[in-house]
Amino acid sequence: MGKNHKDISMAVIRRLPKYHRYLKDLLDKEVYRISSKELSAMMGFTASQIRQDLNNFGGFGQQGYGYNVEELYGEIQKILGLMASYNTVIVGSGNLGQAIANYTNFQKYGFKLMALFDTNPKLIGMKIRDVPVFDIDELQGFIDEKQVDIGIICTPKEFAQDIADKLVKSGVSAIWNFAPIDLKVPEDIIIENVHLSDSLFILSYLLNNQE
Amino acid sequence: MGKNHKDISMAVIRRLPKYHRYLKDLLDKEVYRISSKELSAMMGFTASQIRQDLNNFGGFGQQGYGYNVEELYGEIQKILGLMASYNTVIVGSGNLGQAIANYTNFQKYGFKLMALFDTNPKLIGMKIRDVPVFDIDELQGFIDEKQVDIGIICTPKEFAQDIADKLVKSGVSAIWNFAPIDLKVPEDIIIENVHLSDSLFILSYLLNNQE
Repeated sequence: MGKNHKDISMAVIRRLPKYHRYLKDLLDKEVYRISSKELSAMMGFTASQIRQDLNNFGGFGQQGYGYNVEELYGEIQKILGLMASYNTVIVGSGNLGQAIANYTNFQKYGFKLMALFDTNPKLIGMKIRDVPVFDIDELQGFIDEKQVDIGIICTPKEFAQDIADKLVKSGVSAIWNFAPIDLKVPEDIIIENVHLSDSLFILSYLLNNQE
Repeated sequence: MGKNHKDISMAVIRRLPKYHRYLKDLLDKEVYRISSKELSAMMGFTASQIRQDLNNFGGFGQQGYGYNVEELYGEIQKILGLMASYNTVIVGSGNLGQAIANYTNFQKYGFKLMALFDTNPKLIGMKIRDVPVFDIDELQGFIDEKQVDIGIICTPKEFAQDIADKLVKSGVSAIWNFAPIDLKVPEDIIIENVHLSDSLFILSYLLNNQE
């Protein structure tokens, strides 16, 4: 029945959200089975890479049948932890914080936005999709009371470490960080970064080194 | 004097923006030389990884001296193409598009934002940091005239492919895509994706598979 999830390499895990995306699209188009060859043509991975990746989750591919899209999708959701429910807060309620608050898709996968926080009096008291923006001074009290799992940092770089410290102290388990800085947190806190400028600089490299 | 840039592996290249970030911080703190050991402690790469990575760019590390921060920073900027100048447009001027328009940092590295585009009459005619928001119908004419290099897609998923087609037809060389979809473009067009949900799902995996 496949390996224990913990035995799957991080390289494979990092490809799972892409499989998740493509399988969801297939389900939306009412496609219920697919071969590794077809998936390969869609996703740009080799068919052998796909078979190897998906073998990690057990016997979903059948000779002459291909993959059961629904089963595979369900299994990947389970591995990614998308069947659970998470309380989240966003710290920094400018454009980026609001953009993330408006991604209703995240809600569908169990990420519940409880509140946003900011220092700007013009933003405090606002609501983004019915979710209130509070004063940042209320952050720690709120997290203690509401059992927040994930703190999302959308502040400028210079405030990010201080916010991370506060989030950790109040008991969040994970930080999704958009500030262009690598935060220092205790080892048991999970950090996932979205460094926009890193991505833009890779694009600029590619633009300058085109074949 | 180091390898030709084209001979450096993409795995090394993808680490360069992180070096760039740390070296910039060092320069801001007026630190002008650093050993691979010190860089290692800061960045979380092993010292041997760092030496191996930086060897690709030639003789910047000196026994007993360490690296010249300024030289190394300059070389990495050159490799990443951050000494050039790029004309960019943002398509989709909601929160995310505005957030990116407000990253004044990008401007510093040569990414000049020429215009934003949207379909929403409430946004058309606005200015974000003095940059106008135009009707999306004007996109192709604008790109033709202004020689835009990079199109930044911040639209919902369902419009992204159509916008990408228009950008390509008008002659952009690269697309920075924030829509949660893998765009189909001709091979000579450079695509760099920021798939936010992929990153969030990895965070959720880590949260569920903590040691």
